[in-house]
Amino acid sequence: MDVTKFAIPEIIFGRGSLNHAGQCALRLGAKKVFLVSDSGIEEAGWVQRLMDILKREGIEWIYYPGVTSNPRDFQVEQGAEFYTKNNADVIIAIGGGSALDTAKGIAIIASNGGKIRDYEGANRVHRPLPPMVLITTTAGSGSDISQFCIITDVERAVKMSIITRTLVPNISIVDPLILRTKSETQIIQSAVDALAHAIESYTSTIASSLTEMHSLKAIDLIIRNLPHAVQTRSLDSLEQLSMASVSASMAFSNASLGAEHALAHSLGGHFDMRHGVIHPILLTAVMRYNLDWAEEKFGNIGRVILNKDLGSVRDNAVEGIEKLDEFFAQLDVPLRLRDEIGEDDKHFLEPICRMAVNDACNLTNPRPASWRELMAVCEEAW
Amino acid sequence: MDVTKFAIPEIIFGRGSLNHAGQCALRLGAKKVFLVSDSGIEEAGWVQRLMDILKREGIEWIYYPGVTSNPRDFQVEQGAEFYTKNNADVIIAIGGGSALDTAKGIAIIASNGGKIRDYEGANRVHRPLPPMVLITTTAGSGSDISQFCIITDVERAVKMSIITRTLVPNISIVDPLILRTKSETQIIQSAVDALAHAIESYTSTIASSLTEMHSLKAIDLIIRNLPHAVQTRSLDSLEQLSMASVSASMAFSNASLGAEHALAHSLGGHFDMRHGVIHPILLTAVMRYNLDWAEEKFGNIGRVILNKDLGSVRDNAVEGIEKLDEFFAQLDVPLRLRDEIGEDDKHFLEPICRMAVNDACNLTNPRPASWRELMAVCEEAW
Repeated sequence: MDVTKFAIPEIIFGRGSLNHAGQCALRLGAKKVFLVSDSGIEEAGWVQRLMDILKREGIEWIYYPGVTSNPRDFQVEQGAEFYTKNNADVIIAIGGGSALDTAKGIAIIASNGGKIRDYEGANRVHRPLPPMVLITTTAGSGSDISQFCIITDVERAVKMSIITRTLVPNISIVDPLILRTKSETQIIQSAVDALAHAIESYTSTIASSLTEMHSLKAIDLIIRNLPHAVQTRSLDSLEQLSMASVSASMAFSNASLGAEHALAHSLGGHFDMRHGVIHPILLTAVMRYNLDWAEEKFGNIGRVILNKDLGSVRDNAVEGIEKLDEFFAQLDVPLRLRDEIGEDDKHFLEPICRMAVNDACNLTNPRPASWRELMAVCEEAW
Repeated sequence: MDVTKFAIPEIIFGRGSLNHAGQCALRLGAKKVFLVSDSGIEEAGWVQRLMDILKREGIEWIYYPGVTSNPRDFQVEQGAEFYTKNNADVIIAIGGGSALDTAKGIAIIASNGGKIRDYEGANRVHRPLPPMVLITTTAGSGSDISQFCIITDVERAVKMSIITRTLVPNISIVDPLILRTKSETQIIQSAVDALAHAIESYTSTIASSLTEMHSLKAIDLIIRNLPHAVQTRSLDSLEQLSMASVSASMAFSNASLGAEHALAHSLGGHFDMRHGVIHPILLTAVMRYNLDWAEEKFGNIGRVILNKDLGSVRDNAVEGIEKLDEFFAQLDVPLRLRDEIGEDDKHFLEPICRMAVNDACNLTNPRPASWRELMAVCEEAW
């Protein structure tokens, strides 16, 4: 094996782990916490709950509520100004991928200066970031575990992937109790994001023995638990989805992703679509595109999805992808690109695909993908 | 699931990863490295190699060669004095468990003061340690990954377990090329230590979904690769043993161990036996003692060892343990306690077992074990 690196935060996992947030901040030397969240999490009561926990530990904080879905460049730049002005020292963020990525973006600017677009791509952040405790409220984005940060460049209307080891937070808190306040749609959109992370990281050209087992575990847990979690909201199922997301995140953070995520970033940046909407539409189309270039691996994925071995790598691979189409179909989510993009906007697909080939995620796709080939994938998914 | 914590260092794994050591030290802010190793590693040329790497990066160092097998309390205390006197800032250790544990012990005293016995047990180190890069030269102890440090208390003639998250180093470097300079005996003793870590962490009362899969993976890799690695020294097999050790270490560092390690520490402390000699003697005896208290888990272990499913949990468990006895028998290592301890010294077993029940590892054994029960295990293994 070539030299491979594996970095994850300290993870505190389990029901009630949110209560550890104050202790975590103290361990990191917090005198004044910079607290990041959004209105949805506030309304669900989690921000107040977190403030109570900080108060109990005698920790001061300043609250930054300026998080939106698909965070923009100017928003994290404003946030960094607010951070600096308030002399905060430790960042705690609670929310989905948008809140956590906003916190990460703020951390980059606050300690490295400049504009967020200066850091697009891999390994371009050079100075250490403020200590971070990230508390996920979804079981999907993995931003609480990963070295990824996705921020929209408004001018170019594209989601930038910023990837660097320093973006791995100090501590990730994963409390499945928080998932109980999520809607059915939020649970599905998060889980299919984790599933896309698991599948793309497994077939990534830089996957390793340290990441592959986490990918397969995540696929297994999501296929076995998502339908039941949506139907029953059972805490056991939600906990399994949380564990799946942790596993998928440990994998993709270290093995990166592929063309499906590259496309999802470009589509999401252009149309401001929610990230989790895109995967049931694109994932199996990209898997079919990649199939012949990673047949053995798709065979392993198929065996996990089918929960049996058909005796042939090819059969496992092909029927696994078909089974995944059926899995998405039963979730009652959009399955075709035309469900999300009007016919009038279809001409934007070309510039979107031209953008996607330059996304860092496209570099590790098992089969090289030009913009024309990504266009063909979009046509298949149309 | 109750709240569970999972912490590991950044891991740099693969052939040639040793070359990253200088960059790692720089990333941690090194101005003057405190380099820890022993004469065996020096003779194999690895200390010089590491010095060349540091020189290439323009990093100054001071070398501390005072490592012995089963490091003693006074040795780490002397080492800490040497560290402080030389104004070092980052610790790099290269070696087996003894060298790495010496480095960890030095780090504790250098930053927390006092005597090393003040820190025996769990979570008793309160101030942060100097940054550490630990480079393992064996595939077994896992000290480069774990929050464990084992130091002999000379007065009480016992190995103390010091367990705390701050002992997880910043960076672990695992370079399978280094294993090529190890003797057959060293490879076996390291691998059976990793196997004991994997099995005891899997049946530990605080094992979690985050650790269990690493335990099973390690068992599988060691059973499948150790005989071939010993016979052929093939780099592929050695690499698999390195990966097994990393997996087992991620598991036991976070799930702890059991009665077998508690006994091994007390025996090792009393008789100055090499740690890796003890496992083929004691492990299956402890597994039989635990069997009824974790039958399902021993069934899973059995399936991995046997590489098949006999259709019954009990059969998998029992035959797995028998197969493990056969596995040890083919390794040409001592299999009975009487091979290592003279009849004249047998009376020491009682105080040894009385000591072992207080070892932190005994707390997480699936079946509670009194000193009399540990005596019975020793009798079975005699």
